[in-house]
Amino acid sequence: MARSDWKRPTEFPLPEGHRRIRIDLSYDGSLFSGWQRQQGVRTVQEEIERALAKMLKTPVHVHGSGRTDAGVHAIGQVAHFDIANQSVPVEVFPVALNQLLPHDVRITSSSLVDERFHARFTSISREYRYHVKEIADFSPFDRDRVCRIRKFPPIDLLNAYAAYIVGTHDFSTFSASGDQSHSRIRDIYASGFSYTDSQWGGRMLVYRVSGNAFLMHQVRSMVGTMLQLGEDAAPPGEFGRRLASKDRLQALRTAPPGGLYLYRIAYDPE
Amino acid sequence: MARSDWKRPTEFPLPEGHRRIRIDLSYDGSLFSGWQRQQGVRTVQEEIERALAKMLKTPVHVHGSGRTDAGVHAIGQVAHFDIANQSVPVEVFPVALNQLLPHDVRITSSSLVDERFHARFTSISREYRYHVKEIADFSPFDRDRVCRIRKFPPIDLLNAYAAYIVGTHDFSTFSASGDQSHSRIRDIYASGFSYTDSQWGGRMLVYRVSGNAFLMHQVRSMVGTMLQLGEDAAPPGEFGRRLASKDRLQALRTAPPGGLYLYRIAYDPE
Repeated sequence: MARSDWKRPTEFPLPEGHRRIRIDLSYDGSLFSGWQRQQGVRTVQEEIERALAKMLKTPVHVHGSGRTDAGVHAIGQVAHFDIANQSVPVEVFPVALNQLLPHDVRITSSSLVDERFHARFTSISREYRYHVKEIADFSPFDRDRVCRIRKFPPIDLLNAYAAYIVGTHDFSTFSASGDQSHSRIRDIYASGFSYTDSQWGGRMLVYRVSGNAFLMHQVRSMVGTMLQLGEDAAPPGEFGRRLASKDRLQALRTAPPGGLYLYRIAYDPE
Repeated sequence: MARSDWKRPTEFPLPEGHRRIRIDLSYDGSLFSGWQRQQGVRTVQEEIERALAKMLKTPVHVHGSGRTDAGVHAIGQVAHFDIANQSVPVEVFPVALNQLLPHDVRITSSSLVDERFHARFTSISREYRYHVKEIADFSPFDRDRVCRIRKFPPIDLLNAYAAYIVGTHDFSTFSASGDQSHSRIRDIYASGFSYTDSQWGGRMLVYRVSGNAFLMHQVRSMVGTMLQLGEDAAPPGEFGRRLASKDRLQALRTAPPGGLYLYRIAYDPE
């Protein structure tokens, strides 16, 4: 095969006469069965494809940056789609789609991108955040959006666990049962806990983690395990040992989906 | 009848051997058909009475400070109940009840009060707040909690309308159809709009109103009318004229329930 026939992995051909549109969006995941279209349940992808079809009078397939689980939220989800219609200015998508979408999903921006862009395959990093509050500060407005625990473990201890996550590791310990990934090795760039004031009263503990990619349930499994070890005042090395074991049975709780937010996806500026 | 037989309107006899407990609570009204117990629907009063009955192993009747409509929220609702059980310390109610309550209602405090206290009849003022955002800033996390409008009217104009509300007026214009009140005269102490930053991005317009009492739907009807007049750039006197007409047909929109919060109830310190 001649070299010129090779496709660089960052080329995703755009059909003749089409434009590729990137949309950024956020959603409250509480009433969704996750991102990905599935028969018989309500998903974000399906709501967006339905709104696009209504707006453009033709079926449109939407590619997301990645799935989110049922109940998981997104503040900075990214998706793209290709359209043949040349008469629609790219900047009208947020307003036009938001009029057709239910209130728990909102398009925050849209832009024209070229065929080297793919919402999933050209992302270089993604950040998740996880929200936790103590029961005494839990407000009814935190329902399905914040994880409740009895008492925060010492934040220094949590950060000592979290530091083990940074770097290139096999995250099999925190994989979902039945995970079919070819490799469970992921690069994690940052991992740490901090406090913030909650709009609805009290302090909120926020875990932020960014990396090149994540396994299914990985963030929730890591958070649940760190919170439980912290509650038991386990030494930091105990978390490191469990991570290194690559053994799913060494993961403890899986934190509930409502505390998790897909916060940001980054792409190569090129 | 001898004078000593008269009851002062602020005495609500406590049965022999009982204690009267005040609870302060907040709730996300989105999934409730309002405060007041009704057959076949989910109400806040019923959830609290159910949790109390479970905790104390006896039926308990809860008196609220007032009803809230379906979908309306509360940050500072107040209620009281009388119990014969002498073994339960008053301070355990928040923790004990919150364990039994669904996450969309939370007891924030409890205290022992005497028989001169009645959550409804001895309140001296109540404050409501109403939240509004522009569609462009609307977040999925604002769903059912903030009213969306296309564009904020000038805040000075809204405050010129709002100023008409302060004072003692017959609020028939803003009464619900079928309102059976003996009198529709209410004393309003404060009424005004201000901006605040929204946790989920953008500016939020907040209407605050406090008074001795409110008619059913009054706040939502006043807010909806002010927003619509503001959109039409109607002069301030136009709102005053509608208020003075005491004619329900002079009210315009009724703003949706999800933007409304029962914010605070005040009682005479005595």
